[in-house]
Amino acid sequence: MPEKPLTGWRLRWYTVIFEADTRAGRLFDQALIGVILLSIAVVMADSVQSIHQVHGRALMGTEWIFTLLFSAEYLARLLSVRRPLQYATSFYGVIDLVAVLPTYLALFVPELHAFIDVRVLRLLRVFRVFKLAAYVAEYQSLARALSASRRKILVFLSAVLMLVLVMGTVMYVVEGPGNGFTSIPTSVYWAISTVTTVGFGDIAPKTDLGRLISSFMMLLGWGTLAVPTGIVTSEMAAHRRMEWLQVTTRTCHECLAEGQAADANFCFNCGARLPPYTPAQAKPPADPPAPPR
Amino acid sequence: MPEKPLTGWRLRWYTVIFEADTRAGRLFDQALIGVILLSIAVVMADSVQSIHQVHGRALMGTEWIFTLLFSAEYLARLLSVRRPLQYATSFYGVIDLVAVLPTYLALFVPELHAFIDVRVLRLLRVFRVFKLAAYVAEYQSLARALSASRRKILVFLSAVLMLVLVMGTVMYVVEGPGNGFTSIPTSVYWAISTVTTVGFGDIAPKTDLGRLISSFMMLLGWGTLAVPTGIVTSEMAAHRRMEWLQVTTRTCHECLAEGQAADANFCFNCGARLPPYTPAQAKPPADPPAPPR
Amino acid sequence: MPEKPLTGWRLRWYTVIFEADTRAGRLFDQALIGVILLSIAVVMADSVQSIHQVHGRALMGTEWIFTLLFSAEYLARLLSVRRPLQYATSFYGVIDLVAVLPTYLALFVPELHAFIDVRVLRLLRVFRVFKLAAYVAEYQSLARALSASRRKILVFLSAVLMLVLVMGTVMYVVEGPGNGFTSIPTSVYWAISTVTTVGFGDIAPKTDLGRLISSFMMLLGWGTLAVPTGIVTSEMAAHRRMEWLQVTTRTCHECLAEGQAADANFCFNCGARLPPYTPAQAKPPADPPAPPR
Amino acid sequence: MPEKPLTGWRLRWYTVIFEADTRAGRLFDQALIGVILLSIAVVMADSVQSIHQVHGRALMGTEWIFTLLFSAEYLARLLSVRRPLQYATSFYGVIDLVAVLPTYLALFVPELHAFIDVRVLRLLRVFRVFKLAAYVAEYQSLARALSASRRKILVFLSAVLMLVLVMGTVMYVVEGPGNGFTSIPTSVYWAISTVTTVGFGDIAPKTDLGRLISSFMMLLGWGTLAVPTGIVTSEMAAHRRMEWLQVTTRTCHECLAEGQAADANFCFNCGARLPPYTPAQAKPPADPPAPPR
Repeated sequence: MPEKPLTGWRLRWYTVIFEADTRAGRLFDQALIGVILLSIAVVMADSVQSIHQVHGRALMGTEWIFTLLFSAEYLARLLSVRRPLQYATSFYGVIDLVAVLPTYLALFVPELHAFIDVRVLRLLRVFRVFKLAAYVAEYQSLARALSASRRKILVFLSAVLMLVLVMGTVMYVVEGPGNGFTSIPTSVYWAISTVTTVGFGDIAPKTDLGRLISSFMMLLGWGTLAVPTGIVTSEMAAHRRMEWLQVTTRTCHECLAEGQAADANFCFNCGARLPPYTPAQAKPPADPPAPPR
Repeated sequence: MPEKPLTGWRLRWYTVIFEADTRAGRLFDQALIGVILLSIAVVMADSVQSIHQVHGRALMGTEWIFTLLFSAEYLARLLSVRRPLQYATSFYGVIDLVAVLPTYLALFVPELHAFIDVRVLRLLRVFRVFKLAAYVAEYQSLARALSASRRKILVFLSAVLMLVLVMGTVMYVVEGPGNGFTSIPTSVYWAISTVTTVGFGDIAPKTDLGRLISSFMMLLGWGTLAVPTGIVTSEMAAHRRMEWLQVTTRTCHECLAEGQAADANFCFNCGARLPPYTPAQAKPPADPPAPPR
Repeated sequence: MPEKPLTGWRLRWYTVIFEADTRAGRLFDQALIGVILLSIAVVMADSVQSIHQVHGRALMGTEWIFTLLFSAEYLARLLSVRRPLQYATSFYGVIDLVAVLPTYLALFVPELHAFIDVRVLRLLRVFRVFKLAAYVAEYQSLARALSASRRKILVFLSAVLMLVLVMGTVMYVVEGPGNGFTSIPTSVYWAISTVTTVGFGDIAPKTDLGRLISSFMMLLGWGTLAVPTGIVTSEMAAHRRMEWLQVTTRTCHECLAEGQAADANFCFNCGARLPPYTPAQAKPPADPPAPPR
Repeated sequence: MPEKPLTGWRLRWYTVIFEADTRAGRLFDQALIGVILLSIAVVMADSVQSIHQVHGRALMGTEWIFTLLFSAEYLARLLSVRRPLQYATSFYGVIDLVAVLPTYLALFVPELHAFIDVRVLRLLRVFRVFKLAAYVAEYQSLARALSASRRKILVFLSAVLMLVLVMGTVMYVVEGPGNGFTSIPTSVYWAISTVTTVGFGDIAPKTDLGRLISSFMMLLGWGTLAVPTGIVTSEMAAHRRMEWLQVTTRTCHECLAEGQAADANFCFNCGARLPPYTPAQAKPPADPPAPPR
C-alpha cells in the first residue's frame, strides 16, 4: 500500500490538509490558525481564578469542542497520508498528537490540563505550510549563524556553568542557610540569577563579604555578556560579508583581474568583453541597494 | 478652494506656524518647545500627592491656560493650512488634537487627566520643523538598519513568544497558584521578566524543580540576547561598509553607468576608457583619515 | 612673572610634583597613589556603623592627617607652577581642591563628610602622570568611537526618554497609587528600571493590564539594547578596518595601482620599483600578525 | 633520577593516568569523569537539609570512598611522573590536591566541607586529556580575542569602578542609612547591582532625588554595556577577517616573500613575475560557500 500513489478522496483530503496551494487548502490553514489561537486563549482564560469561577463550565465545553475538532483533524491526517506511521512519528505528527492528549489525560490527572497550551507549537507547522519563503530564509540564516558558532558557545557555556557551581558553593559557605542560601543547589540558582543579571532578589547576600563576592560576579556577568554577543555577531557579519564579496570573485578571462561586478559587461582593468555571467555562479546578497546599471 | 495658493494672512500664519525659516517662525517654534516642556512639568508635578495638596489649584489653572493656548494653536493650524482635513487626519494633526483633548475630557472622566503627558509626542514635530538635518540623517540610518532586519527580528520575536508561552505554562503547573503563579497569563508575565533578565522578583520560583527550570531560562535569555544584537549590529556594519565602498559614485562619461571601482581603467558597462580618477570626484566617507593621493 | 622660566627650588619642586621622569618624581607619584587609596579606604570604613563606633576617633584623626597632607600638596602645586591661576582653574586643579574641601566643610555641614570619596578622581591625574602610553591610546580609541557615534546615541536616547515618559504615564493611570505607582515621576522611574532590564521590584505591576503593558516594555527594552550595541560596535569595527586598510592606500607611481603593502619594494601590478615608504605616511594597525616579509 | 626515562610499571601507569591514547587510558579518563560528577552530586545533595537528615550517613560514607579514591589517584600520579615536585606545583597538580583536602580538613573545620565542590575544576584536566582538538581551537580563539582586548577592557573597568565608587557615595549621602544605604561599601554594592542591570531590589532608593540619580545610573549602565560588547565583537570580527584575508599565504617563488595579494602580477618584494594564481593554492576560510571559479 505505501507505494501506491494517493487517489480519490485521500488525494483530495491530502491536498486540503497538508498543502496550501488550492483555495480550499488555504482556507483550511487559515481556519486552523484561528482555532489554535482561540483554543490557547480559552486555556489561558480558564486558568484565571475569577474567570474560571464564572465561566468555568462554558470554557470547559468550548475546550472539548476544540479537542474533538483537533482529534478529527489528526485522524484525517492519518487517513489521508500515504505512510501513516511515518507521519505519526515525525516531529509535526508528535506535536499534533500532544496537542489533543492533555484534555483526555486531564480526565484522570487534572494537573495536566494546563498543558493544552502546547498547542502553540502547532503554529510552527502552519507557518511552514504557508511557505513564507522570505521568513524561512531569514530563519535559516539565523540558524546557520548559531550552528556555525555552536562550539564556541558550548565552550563558553561550560565555563559559565563551572563558574556558577564554584561561586554558588562559595556563597553557600559565606552566607549560610540563615541568609537564604539554604543549600548548594539554591546557591547555584542564585549565582545563575546574578551572573545573568536577572537578579530576582528573592535571595540576596547580607554579609559584607557576600556582597563583595556578588559585586564581582555582577561585573563579571555584565561584561561577559560581550562574549556570546561577539561570537554570534562576528559570525553573522562574516556571512553578510561573504554574501556581499561573492560578487567580487568574478574574474576577467583576458587579464585575470578579479572582482568584476555581477552585472559588468567589460573588464574594468583591460576593457575586454566579459562572458555572460549566469546567476548560478553567484548568489547576489540579500538586500543591498540595487547594483548600478 | 484647495487648489488656490495661500495668500494674505493665511500665508503669513502658515509661514510662522509650519515653517522655521523666518525669524518669526523660529521664535514661534522655540516658544512652542518651551510651553510643551513646561506643560509636561506641570502635569508631572500635579501627580505628586504632596505638591497637589498645596499647589493643586494653581497647577490646575496653569494647565487650563496651556490647554487654551494649544487649542488656539490647533485652530490656527486648521485655518492657515490649504487642506484642513488632510492636516487633521495626518500623523502630526492627530497628535496635536490628542494633546488638547485630555484636559477637556477630564471634566467628565477625571482619570484621563494624566494623559496630557502625551504632549511629549508633540516634540517630534518640533524636531522635524527645526530641520536638524544631521540628526534626521542619523535617525534614518538607524531606521534603515532596523527596517532591513525587521524580518529576522520578527522570526526571533515569535520564537521567543512561543518559548515564554510554553515555559509560562510549565511553571504554572510546576509551581502552582500557592507560590504566586496564580494563572497562565501571570506565569507568562513572569517568564518574560525572566527571559529578558529583568527579574522583578515580585514572583519567584520556590520549588527546586521550578528553580532548575528558571535557571535554564535565565541562561537562555542571557545568551539569546546575542541574537537581536547580532542582527542589528551586522546590519549596521554592512551599511557602513557600503558607505565606505561608495567609491561607487564614480560614473562613466559615455554610458553614465555609476559605481565604477576606484582603480578601474575601463567602464564595466560599455568598455569605454575612463578618465583618470581624481580624489575630488569621490565623496570621502564620514570620518576616516583623508585618503592619500 | 608668568613669562619667567621656573628656576631654583620651584623648578625642583615642579619636577618632583608634576613630572614622573626622575627617581624622586616617580617616588612622589607612587606615594601619592598609596595615600589616596588609603584615605578612600578610611572614609569607606568610617561609614560602616560597627567600625565607626569602635575606631571612630582613630579614623577621624587619620583622615585629618591625610587632609593636611593633601592641603600641603595643593599649596606646593600652586607655588611651584608658573601660572597658579591657570592651574587652579584647570580640570585637575579643581579636583585637587575638591579632594581637600569636604573635611573642612564637614566641620560645619557634617553630611558632606562622605564626599571625601571624591578623592578617587585624583587617580585620573596619577594615571596621566605615569604616562601609561598604551592605555592612553586605548582610552582615546574608545573615546573616538563613542564620540563618532554620539549623534546616533542622542537620537536613540531621546526616543527612549519619550517612550519611558509616555509609558510611565500610562502605567500611572492603569495601576494607580494603590499599587505603588504613586506619581508620574515614580512611574517614570519604574518604566526606566523596566526598560533597562534592571527590575528592582520595589514597585511592580499588579493588575493584568499593567502586567501586559510591562511585558511589552520588557521585551522592547531587552531587544532594543541591540541598538546602542550595534552603534558602538559597528563604529569600532569600522575604525579597526580603516587602520587595517590604511596599509592599502599606497599607490604605485608608474601604473597608479593602489593598495601596495607597507613594506613592498615593487608594485604588484607592473613590477616598477616603489619609492621608499616612510612611516609618516601610514600608521600600521595596532596588533595584526607581523606583516609578511 | 629525573633524567632517567620512565620504565616498567611507572611507564605503564603514566600511560594510563596521564594519556588517553590507549584503551586503558581512555577507560580511566571516562571513569574519572563519572566519579567526579558523582562526587559533586553527592556534595550538592548533602547540602539540602531534607536529604541530609534522611541520607546523611550514607552520603558521608560515599564521600569518604570518593575521597580515598582521589587520594589514591593523586599518589599514583605523584609516583608515576618523572618529576613529582614539578607536577605537585603545576596548575593541575594543585587542583588535584585541593580536590581531596576539604574532606580531611572538614574533620577539624566542618565549614570547609562544602568546598569539596572545587572538584568541578578537575574536569578542566579531563577535557584537556581528551584532546578535544576542535574545542581547544575554539577556546584559544576566544582567549586570543579577550587577551587582545584586555587593555581596552581594563580601561573600561577602571572607569566603571570609579563611577560606582562616586555614585555609591552620592547615594549614601542622598538616601542615608534610614533607607537601607547603611554604609558606603553597601551603597557601592547597590551601585554595582544597578549599573550592571542586575537590580536585586534588596536595597532600593526611596527619595525622589535618589530615584532620579538611579534612573540616570540605570540608563548609563544599560547603554554602556555596548562598550565591552563592542570591544570584544570588533576584536573577534577582525580576527575572522584576517583569517579570510589569508589570501596572504601566496608566496613568491624567487624570494619566498609570503602574503602576495591574490591579484598581484609581480612580487611586492623582489619584482619577479609571479606565476598565475590557481585557487587550489589558497586556503579557503572555515565555512563559506565554495568560492566560484
